Amino acid sequence: MKQNELFIINKIRHKASQSVDKPELGALRRAWRLRLGIGDDAAALASLDPRQELLITTDLLVEGAHFHRRRHPARALGHKVLARGLSDIAAMGGAPLYALLSLCLPGWTGEKWLKQFLAGLFRLARQHGIALIGGDLSAGNRFVADIIVLGSAPRGRILERGRAKVGQILYVSGRLGGSALGLKRLLAGRFQPTDRAVRRHLYPTPRLALGRFLLEKLHAAAGMDLSDGLSIDLYRLTRESGVGADLLATAIPVFPSATLNQALHGGEDYELLFTLDPRRKPPAHFEGIPLTPIGTITAGRRLVLVGPDGRRKPLPIRGFQHKV
Amino acid sequence: MKQNELFIINKIRHKASQSVDKPELGALRRAWRLRLGIGDDAAALASLDPRQELLITTDLLVEGAHFHRRRHPARALGHKVLARGLSDIAAMGGAPLYALLSLCLPGWTGEKWLKQFLAGLFRLARQHGIALIGGDLSAGNRFVADIIVLGSAPRGRILERGRAKVGQILYVSGRLGGSALGLKRLLAGRFQPTDRAVRRHLYPTPRLALGRFLLEKLHAAAGMDLSDGLSIDLYRLTRESGVGADLLATAIPVFPSATLNQALHGGEDYELLFTLDPRRKPPAHFEGIPLTPIGTITAGRRLVLVGPDGRRKPLPIRGFQHKV
Repeated sequence: MKQNELFIINKIRHKASQSVDKPELGALRRAWRLRLGIGDDAAALASLDPRQELLITTDLLVEGAHFHRRRHPARALGHKVLARGLSDIAAMGGAPLYALLSLCLPGWTGEKWLKQFLAGLFRLARQHGIALIGGDLSAGNRFVADIIVLGSAPRGRILERGRAKVGQILYVSGRLGGSALGLKRLLAGRFQPTDRAVRRHLYPTPRLALGRFLLEKLHAAAGMDLSDGLSIDLYRLTRESGVGADLLATAIPVFPSATLNQALHGGEDYELLFTLDPRRKPPAHFEGIPLTPIGTITAGRRLVLVGPDGRRKPLPIRGFQHKV
Repeated sequence: MKQNELFIINKIRHKASQSVDKPELGALRRAWRLRLGIGDDAAALASLDPRQELLITTDLLVEGAHFHRRRHPARALGHKVLARGLSDIAAMGGAPLYALLSLCLPGWTGEKWLKQFLAGLFRLARQHGIALIGGDLSAGNRFVADIIVLGSAPRGRILERGRAKVGQILYVSGRLGGSALGLKRLLAGRFQPTDRAVRRHLYPTPRLALGRFLLEKLHAAAGMDLSDGLSIDLYRLTRESGVGADLLATAIPVFPSATLNQALHGGEDYELLFTLDPRRKPPAHFEGIPLTPIGTITAGRRLVLVGPDGRRKPLPIRGFQHKV
């Protein structure tokens, strides 16, 4: 393993050195300069702009729990590993800057598979100007990838989960349930190469520009990304804020051909859930992504699903069972 | 899984909130203030002292590769997960401040096991005043823990691997091979509860105070921690620096009852390997830990093992095969 490990690290390092910069991010990008990247015991960042704060997130992707190696292409997994981390930074309204990657590689991941995996990951990294600055590598029986993403945001003004307040309007971006539908079709093995739900599942788009728009232009109060499903993620947001919510079933934007159930409990849509003061009116779309009001923040801690007939019932909290 | 996951996260969060501060670290600790910890999409740090830089490291611990669940106690694994990350920060001469933990939990990790695991981890965290500020949790077939440690160090003065220069003296802390010997005894199942080699393997001590001493008082040039074994780690250090080394077999401090082979190629000792300008004379011990000169940095890129009879032969680079 050890010699092979050095070979793999060198390959990753070579790819990492090709990352490009994204000058348009301005102050957010300039706030943290990389002093030392891959190849040492730790990476080192220097703070150059004290008005920014550093965001750190970690996300696991586990074989058997989050994907099936016979169904999920290596390139899509590379994309998704990084997209999950970037989505967390988007959910704070920040700009992602650097990533570290810990990989546990079982025997079935050959050179070709790994090449495709890294191609998917580095393609997305280049799109957003992310530099890979460190990581760890191990052999093991199951594939596991842990991505760590560091980002920058204006100090004290990030989109926290705990800032939802009674009377605010709850919004969601995009349409929900597409990833759950895509996973179902992928596992059944019956779909067209251009199937939009399958693409949504395999190549989710982190809503980075939207996150910054929510923070800087809409002054959104609370926000998070939908990784496990609307019902459980809304539960998390309201719990952190000490509030409840009324969710309007008819208002929830459902992905074409998906069910309301998939929209409520399906995971991995990576859309943003956020709250706005009722006086603030967001545009109907941001860069083509619909922004839809789906409910209100209420006193107490109950989550209520309001049906088409106005009937109120407790929102079932199921969350996406990642198991595939 | 999901409801159970929320339960586990709440337990971890409760423990994390009990972490204590270590005021004696002064400027290093004050450099990065935690703005937002566990419970959001990302953690947030604010930079308060622009003379410091931020260190980030990630370390995987994988069932079957790094440990065997029937041999390694849960408490020792919790300790070791964090110790591995802290050792990387020690190897840079920095002070660890914050940690994030990604866990993949298989069915066999029950509540009691997890409690012991977290007890081992948080005990070490409290010793060093580390706050756990985030993480991720997944189900899966094998136990995997990825620890991310953030630390602080004086800007531009960290112990990098790439700074070894021809003519410098190579040093190592402590005695080597103890962890490899301890692992052998542990797997054989024949050892006393007080066995020092087994303790060394199960509860390694990150050399944090030594790392800062090397940086601040000895002005060490290059440094790294010995996680995979002296031979492969020396190879990494010299490769990063573009140099070679002569290693004196008789000078290598061998752990009591361990073999020279275990000292050369055994992993997980977590001692520090460093280089000093020949004019600098370190003390023979630092806080009871021997500091031993074991060779010199040479031109060219060859690693040579000099035998007791003065015979020179290429240093075999094997590294510790983590497989247990």
